[in-house]
Amino acid sequence: MQNLRSRYVFHPYMTPVAIVGANGYSGEELCSILARHARVRLVAVTSRQHAGKPVSQVLPRLAGHPAVEGLLFSEATAEAVIASGAKFAFLALPHGLASEFALPLLEAGLRIIDLSADFRLREGDLYKEFYGEDHPAPDLLPEAAYGLPELWREKIKDARLVASAGCYPTSILLPLIPLLRAGLIQVEDIAVSSASGVSGAGRKAETSLLYAECNESLRAYGLPKHRHLSEIEQELSIAAGRSVVITFVPHLAPMTRGIHTTTFAKLAPGVTLDQVTSALQVAYVEETFVRFSQALPDTKYVTGTNFCDIAVRFDERARRLILLSAEDNLVKGAAGQAVQNFNLMAGFPETEGLL
Amino acid sequence: MQNLRSRYVFHPYMTPVAIVGANGYSGEELCSILARHARVRLVAVTSRQHAGKPVSQVLPRLAGHPAVEGLLFSEATAEAVIASGAKFAFLALPHGLASEFALPLLEAGLRIIDLSADFRLREGDLYKEFYGEDHPAPDLLPEAAYGLPELWREKIKDARLVASAGCYPTSILLPLIPLLRAGLIQVEDIAVSSASGVSGAGRKAETSLLYAECNESLRAYGLPKHRHLSEIEQELSIAAGRSVVITFVPHLAPMTRGIHTTTFAKLAPGVTLDQVTSALQVAYVEETFVRFSQALPDTKYVTGTNFCDIAVRFDERARRLILLSAEDNLVKGAAGQAVQNFNLMAGFPETEGLL
Amino acid sequence: MQNLRSRYVFHPYMTPVAIVGANGYSGEELCSILARHARVRLVAVTSRQHAGKPVSQVLPRLAGHPAVEGLLFSEATAEAVIASGAKFAFLALPHGLASEFALPLLEAGLRIIDLSADFRLREGDLYKEFYGEDHPAPDLLPEAAYGLPELWREKIKDARLVASAGCYPTSILLPLIPLLRAGLIQVEDIAVSSASGVSGAGRKAETSLLYAECNESLRAYGLPKHRHLSEIEQELSIAAGRSVVITFVPHLAPMTRGIHTTTFAKLAPGVTLDQVTSALQVAYVEETFVRFSQALPDTKYVTGTNFCDIAVRFDERARRLILLSAEDNLVKGAAGQAVQNFNLMAGFPETEGLL
Amino acid sequence: MQNLRSRYVFHPYMTPVAIVGANGYSGEELCSILARHARVRLVAVTSRQHAGKPVSQVLPRLAGHPAVEGLLFSEATAEAVIASGAKFAFLALPHGLASEFALPLLEAGLRIIDLSADFRLREGDLYKEFYGEDHPAPDLLPEAAYGLPELWREKIKDARLVASAGCYPTSILLPLIPLLRAGLIQVEDIAVSSASGVSGAGRKAETSLLYAECNESLRAYGLPKHRHLSEIEQELSIAAGRSVVITFVPHLAPMTRGIHTTTFAKLAPGVTLDQVTSALQVAYVEETFVRFSQALPDTKYVTGTNFCDIAVRFDERARRLILLSAEDNLVKGAAGQAVQNFNLMAGFPETEGLL
Repeated sequence: MQNLRSRYVFHPYMTPVAIVGANGYSGEELCSILARHARVRLVAVTSRQHAGKPVSQVLPRLAGHPAVEGLLFSEATAEAVIASGAKFAFLALPHGLASEFALPLLEAGLRIIDLSADFRLREGDLYKEFYGEDHPAPDLLPEAAYGLPELWREKIKDARLVASAGCYPTSILLPLIPLLRAGLIQVEDIAVSSASGVSGAGRKAETSLLYAECNESLRAYGLPKHRHLSEIEQELSIAAGRSVVITFVPHLAPMTRGIHTTTFAKLAPGVTLDQVTSALQVAYVEETFVRFSQALPDTKYVTGTNFCDIAVRFDERARRLILLSAEDNLVKGAAGQAVQNFNLMAGFPETEGLL
Repeated sequence: MQNLRSRYVFHPYMTPVAIVGANGYSGEELCSILARHARVRLVAVTSRQHAGKPVSQVLPRLAGHPAVEGLLFSEATAEAVIASGAKFAFLALPHGLASEFALPLLEAGLRIIDLSADFRLREGDLYKEFYGEDHPAPDLLPEAAYGLPELWREKIKDARLVASAGCYPTSILLPLIPLLRAGLIQVEDIAVSSASGVSGAGRKAETSLLYAECNESLRAYGLPKHRHLSEIEQELSIAAGRSVVITFVPHLAPMTRGIHTTTFAKLAPGVTLDQVTSALQVAYVEETFVRFSQALPDTKYVTGTNFCDIAVRFDERARRLILLSAEDNLVKGAAGQAVQNFNLMAGFPETEGLL
Repeated sequence: MQNLRSRYVFHPYMTPVAIVGANGYSGEELCSILARHARVRLVAVTSRQHAGKPVSQVLPRLAGHPAVEGLLFSEATAEAVIASGAKFAFLALPHGLASEFALPLLEAGLRIIDLSADFRLREGDLYKEFYGEDHPAPDLLPEAAYGLPELWREKIKDARLVASAGCYPTSILLPLIPLLRAGLIQVEDIAVSSASGVSGAGRKAETSLLYAECNESLRAYGLPKHRHLSEIEQELSIAAGRSVVITFVPHLAPMTRGIHTTTFAKLAPGVTLDQVTSALQVAYVEETFVRFSQALPDTKYVTGTNFCDIAVRFDERARRLILLSAEDNLVKGAAGQAVQNFNLMAGFPETEGLL
Repeated sequence: MQNLRSRYVFHPYMTPVAIVGANGYSGEELCSILARHARVRLVAVTSRQHAGKPVSQVLPRLAGHPAVEGLLFSEATAEAVIASGAKFAFLALPHGLASEFALPLLEAGLRIIDLSADFRLREGDLYKEFYGEDHPAPDLLPEAAYGLPELWREKIKDARLVASAGCYPTSILLPLIPLLRAGLIQVEDIAVSSASGVSGAGRKAETSLLYAECNESLRAYGLPKHRHLSEIEQELSIAAGRSVVITFVPHLAPMTRGIHTTTFAKLAPGVTLDQVTSALQVAYVEETFVRFSQALPDTKYVTGTNFCDIAVRFDERARRLILLSAEDNLVKGAAGQAVQNFNLMAGFPETEGLL
């Protein structure tokens, strides 16, 4: 009912940012986080479907927040984003589309945090193998930073283009990377079973995502070559120093948010559980958003937060290591991680807006 | 409101049966199935907590069914069960308690279908290792049949005492047994990730099972040595002809019913996926309650039924076999399987009351 | 895998029936109930979308049931239904479409149980007021029986065309009708608040019905003139002997099945709670599928059943009567009620296939 | 793992506060909100059950927040709270217990925000009527402010003791009060149907609150004289200037959080819908936390927020007004409202920590 953004005081130190594709689940979560971010001014949010409508009408959760007061959805064009004066743009678009925005926005001097998979692979060939088509902007791949701050913090700080890490990959990489870097597990013996909440599939009008189809339902899908395997194995291989191929089985679970990942692995010869525990402790003791502890992870402890919880167990009888992790697919798995990357790029405290 | 079991006509061909412990989830499901079973007359249902109360009051779902009209809960004693004239008794009790009923009931000439874990292991030592106490009735172990009809049909038919197979074990054994029998997979390389609905934990007033603790929550538990491993490995070892040790990670998922199991395995040298598929097809083509098909199992397709759905996929990149299975933990995983066993024991069509 | 309906023995006493529109939620539930109905042979199930495909593939829950073995979806045409030899046809179609099938099928001598709203109103004018278009087959309205067996049993028995009562209407009419017939409540003071599971909205690919939109969500909708009001008020008015207008607020609740209805009313002058209780007891003591009791209804006690549970409370402080009722929207609110109507029409025991 | 509260910088302008009873759902939510509150320092959180344990272990969601780093649960005694140096104490205790803390804490000079029902009634007699026992501290009733800021902001600012309004009452009072104050509706004709998420029942180990009992379940309870009626009618009567008695039917819905309330009322003679709309607009246009709009409220838009959404519809046919409201029972219905009250008492911006 207020017709101007009157209550939202823009301090000069606030950085103007834009969200491209703000009405999907990740985009909405981005709006929600950035609306509370002390150093950010939302200058443009775009939506093909809702251009011209008030954000507070399309996303009623956000109504009443000063940061979206009077804010209308813009056209989903690079021109509109550039015209808004944004210095940073978050791209929350389906894969393939993000590339179309990246080039003109970069040319106009914006820095980009892309939540899609478009720039997560270092090689166009790998993209083609998993996505079935040529990469739309292969020249940008070399400079894109893989946006998992716990792994690539320094590169992210200076990047023009950050490919924020995916939801499944984050939950799989965080427990495994320190072990592969230290050579503590056998690279050929990794099998992963993950379960995701339904928001992970996006706000798409598909019968299989209806409430009555997902409630009281647990099912595997996307077997055996899920697209996210490409970025997972890319990062695991870098950490291990040699090619890593894993088996990955994603499941859909009857919940809105959350990913739980259970990883089976085998210790390298002579390695003890203590070494594993130490490696994880050392890796994450200084990391705010990775909580490595004795307790078994539970998605309900991380939903709505940017934390990824990790635990480890050893099955002595079968001599097998079990890694467990949990995160909110829309926060640490998407929007929260994107803001964490943004904070690094902008030189803000890494936790700003995220605690 | 009716005070006599007037509408429930007892035909002479109906077999009198009793349910001991009828107010837990498995017991209630048993009541529900047996109330519709054309060849069964429910002559006694027991409950320590509710003795003397009408079944229709304690289990309101069942109110109005002729089979429970006027039926009151009996005392939970062997004497009460024997006095009811039952020829068969289903024991739906916590582990440890079933043994107390088994001996006197068998002595009185009843045949028993036990839904607890008490008689599933062939050796008392194994029981002690996993349950932490001496087996209360070790003399009965040799004669008890493991109640998974698809594996032990002939033995079940003649048994006085059938230990109906557990929920996790059923979902794990059905896909694996045919492969181990045929030597198609490597016995030392089996890892299992299962997710169960909350009813699997029983109707227990525990904080961790509250709605607000389980909703929007997915978590592993019982790591790494779940009690059900004992019966699972016992049966896998028999099938393989040598000792099998597996890793098993159970999870609690936010749904009332259903178990979904994902099993990782490796093909034995020289074995092809076709051989695996054939072995499963041959094993189950004549089995009504095992549906082996191309489609990925989904718990929603089996809840409320006695079916176990199975599928197989092969991850060519990692050379790993993925077996998927789904069942209703309270039906094929408990009460339905118990009735299937009962049908075999009583000489009734195996599907009676279950389709 | 079996290519013939070999295990499904057709007894001569089985009545051939068809289901038109079998892949919506009500249609699937009908398949499921009729597959177990001892007096029914499913000779045709139609689906525009899935014509030619096996029922067991489109509706995996039903795979393995002898009654659907080898059964393929037919074209959704009256000709196909007539050619199947069906004597009865269930129409599980969106409103408006049912009329197109009714005329040719009736002319061909079939009797019809229609689950849509097309024939529930006695007057075309009322239809036009609430549905915004002319009734497509007004000539059939006078002969259609309103398919709520507890109210119109005798008329249903002989009808060629039965308009099976809707889900909300059933839960609202059953508690109110006996009171209005006896003049125990004030007709001008009835307000109803209902909550329905999401399956009530049908298997439609709409964003608002996605899991992530309905989970953890409770909301009113369709205010203030829901289409079902037309049939509700029609039946209430007949019972009261004069025009009844009520307020009705439906809500969507985060569950797959179930309707819970809370009705506020005022006693007529001089009437006591005892009179209300007696009227309901007398009305339903002989009705198998209406359970009037002291306990407060809970949808979980009726899901998967054809029962409607009813209770009454009196708020002495505000002198207001509170009627509570619960049913499964897909069973007593749709497919179960349709089968109950069918049983009456066919001269079978009313509970056949429903207990 | 850190043993001191090292990362949590205490600025001198931070106000020391205590939470008494921090391990229930409201208490945990309070911790969560206050941990992010820029003007608050958590100096004590108490728990009878968990005294001595780290907050981050008992409430794993909060682990990693600087505000709870190194913080241990204190004994649940007034002495411990006083010794902590807290200036404000939040009491998140079952009714009856709060009174025991209030007197010594007030005497020690603390100001109190009580989340229980203990001080919400102005008269001990009313308390006795609804709670069945004498009020434990009747002398404090006159000075306690009813903690619904939108109604009693000025009184709250100066109060030593604020009785934060309950969850159902908030959702019922906010839409009704402006209409009663303006005499727009008939006081004798108000009926309310509410549905609450299960967290409203507290973290209590009761069978009826188990996941498997609440999932796929919708039921009324606490009929017809719910305790919250006392405070609801007290506040409605003050607004109307005469005694108001209403009918209230609460329901339990299968969700963790959220209350949805549907209120039926009748316009006073000569009053139009426009007057109703205007009264609500005027009442709430300046209120941040009440969003009165055209859209129908949905609990999913308010969960995790301190907003209460309100809408109104008019049923022209039945001449009945329908008010709809939604809030998070743990935020605007409990912890958020308590913090809103605290902000007023402490002279902070009312929205601090709540947007």
